[in-house]
Amino acid sequence: MDRADPDDTGKESCDLHATYHGKLATVSKVPLLTRRDLSLAYTPGVAAVCREIASDPENVWRYTLKANTVAIVSDGTAVLGLGNIGPLAAIPVMEGKAILFKEFAGIDAFPICIDAREDDIIRIIRGIAPVFGGINLEDIAAPRCFEIEEELQDLGIPVMHDDQHGAAVVVLAALINACRITGRNLADLRVVVCGVGAAGYAICRLLRCIGYDPDACTPVRELIACDTTGIIFRGRPGLYQNKYKFILGDETNREARSGSLADAFPGADVFIGVSGPGLVTPEMIQSMNPAPIILSLANPVPEIMPEEARRAGAAIVGTGRSDFPNQVNNVLAFPGLFRGALDARAARITDEMKIAAAHAIAGYLTNPGPETILPDPRDHGVAKAVASAVREAAVRCGEARL
Amino acid sequence: MDRADPDDTGKESCDLHATYHGKLATVSKVPLLTRRDLSLAYTPGVAAVCREIASDPENVWRYTLKANTVAIVSDGTAVLGLGNIGPLAAIPVMEGKAILFKEFAGIDAFPICIDAREDDIIRIIRGIAPVFGGINLEDIAAPRCFEIEEELQDLGIPVMHDDQHGAAVVVLAALINACRITGRNLADLRVVVCGVGAAGYAICRLLRCIGYDPDACTPVRELIACDTTGIIFRGRPGLYQNKYKFILGDETNREARSGSLADAFPGADVFIGVSGPGLVTPEMIQSMNPAPIILSLANPVPEIMPEEARRAGAAIVGTGRSDFPNQVNNVLAFPGLFRGALDARAARITDEMKIAAAHAIAGYLTNPGPETILPDPRDHGVAKAVASAVREAAVRCGEARL
Repeated sequence: MDRADPDDTGKESCDLHATYHGKLATVSKVPLLTRRDLSLAYTPGVAAVCREIASDPENVWRYTLKANTVAIVSDGTAVLGLGNIGPLAAIPVMEGKAILFKEFAGIDAFPICIDAREDDIIRIIRGIAPVFGGINLEDIAAPRCFEIEEELQDLGIPVMHDDQHGAAVVVLAALINACRITGRNLADLRVVVCGVGAAGYAICRLLRCIGYDPDACTPVRELIACDTTGIIFRGRPGLYQNKYKFILGDETNREARSGSLADAFPGADVFIGVSGPGLVTPEMIQSMNPAPIILSLANPVPEIMPEEARRAGAAIVGTGRSDFPNQVNNVLAFPGLFRGALDARAARITDEMKIAAAHAIAGYLTNPGPETILPDPRDHGVAKAVASAVREAAVRCGEARL
Repeated sequence: MDRADPDDTGKESCDLHATYHGKLATVSKVPLLTRRDLSLAYTPGVAAVCREIASDPENVWRYTLKANTVAIVSDGTAVLGLGNIGPLAAIPVMEGKAILFKEFAGIDAFPICIDAREDDIIRIIRGIAPVFGGINLEDIAAPRCFEIEEELQDLGIPVMHDDQHGAAVVVLAALINACRITGRNLADLRVVVCGVGAAGYAICRLLRCIGYDPDACTPVRELIACDTTGIIFRGRPGLYQNKYKFILGDETNREARSGSLADAFPGADVFIGVSGPGLVTPEMIQSMNPAPIILSLANPVPEIMPEEARRAGAAIVGTGRSDFPNQVNNVLAFPGLFRGALDARAARITDEMKIAAAHAIAGYLTNPGPETILPDPRDHGVAKAVASAVREAAVRCGEARL
């Protein structure tokens, strides 16, 4: 509860950023004091290193920063709650992400903010890939984020849109522990997801195993996705205009329920909100099955405030905020996901690796409780546990090249 | 003379690179210990910083890494003496360059090795420019290096191909001091340049003020450029096929001399070699004016070895090597050039700024001598002096925005 007045935080953050001109610096890992140092780090010695890579490109992983370096790539079209603010204004977020990568996973990450249209973004990422061991896509608007990520899966290094999969992994971890606490099974859950942007769509996919390896994950019993128009159902007028919503219409909502968001709640066990402030009322919660699980993740103002949700009968409530219990925070997932992928030298982050990450996050707590369904995001042990599980999953599914 | 056997240097360099997985790391400039730290460096505080930049893009210079960050961009088509080894094998050189930027100018530089063709390289650099305060082009083959650099001069941040202008600036500095020592004037020099790749062409341009501001520089009296075919002269068959050689044919060699490299030497005061090993004989040196200046910069084996050139009558001999006196090393120029440009927030590195850099390098030595025409490349004071001169020149020519 150390959260000060938001305006104060903003002003102090501006001061901090102005003092240091941002947050990220580069530094040499090798000494540069003597002439000998220079001749080894640069000319003439470096020529031998170049020749080794030219004769066998695999050596790039041995001799260069690639082995430990991830690009944080954004076009600034969907930044935090700020929307399409463009690549320049997105830099502070990408720098922040970069220092989190270093802090939690020892990964050297560098922000790449792209000023270009969708086709060019794909071409640009392909073009600059040689230096990087992985690409973390960030804050790119749906549906272009889906297209870009899909297009780049053949790049030979992991390309993952964190707003999608980081969020989905932590939500799955939260549900795993919420089930442990409330004595439920994932396979029995009836889930309502409100919001089908990047995070919402990835959550729906992971919970219903849409496009996921069904052997690697457990589909929930029923999932109903809602957008601003209400419940998504097969044959909803105009649904075909958005390929991704069309897929959801096909693969979720088996009962073909229709209507408003409120009509999705009766009989549900879980509500997951990745939409907007105040969209959920106590009455909606009361129409759910007894002791429901509420993950109300809109930021900074949740779909329903935790105390209100609890008064309406919720057994467990999580939000995206650090000043309430059960913070669903991507930092629990992305550092370990990329650390594990780099350690395995995986060419992709597969479904199995993401699901292993969710189980590692959930299993990190030996005694989860209603107010501690997830580890503290500042706990540095989480990324280590996730990395190890992800690395093992990569080996198991044949993705590891180390 | 601490240069060990080249093979030893190569092996030791490979070991060094393998130990650290390259040479460059990233690091946070701000603390990340407490929850408050995280809320200032990342969410929710960072949103205020993003908003400040969205409302006024100029704020990006105040609040982000852009103010102090340069990209080292290469496609790996002309790396050291190794040729077209591609973007992966070029990484060790670009990492090396990045740590030199940090060491000598405090600039955070990051290697961007591009896997793409010429048109796409231009588009890619434009696309990733938001994060960077400057672009150092490196080891890109001629003539595409000229096209790429020209195309990007409107980017709003300095874009400089170091193989061209870094080399030309240090050569000019060497000539300024060689003139001081031998009692010559730049304006009276008759110069032979052998090799018209990136460095050679830029040297020719700077010494003849071709495309340079004539108020900012002093053209030498005569310059004869040679390529593998011999002397470049107006009307040489096929010359029109290369735009840049065509310009040289038009703007150099007023006497319209023709013939082989040897035919360029009689009557010259200066030889500058940026070509290949052993192309110059003692007889060629002997045919020059008395006490000539020889900059024999082919690396690792010069056009003529220093002792041989001196025996043939050379007053001053420089090479590109650290194990001989008078090393012509770009590190004397590029850190200070970019530091000065960033400090002035110049949108370009103009002719005047480059010439100011050359004079600052030369003037850094109060008492240059025949074996010390240039400062020691490890002297950290040089970049400071260059930066200051470049910054002042930027102000003088109206390029400074700070």
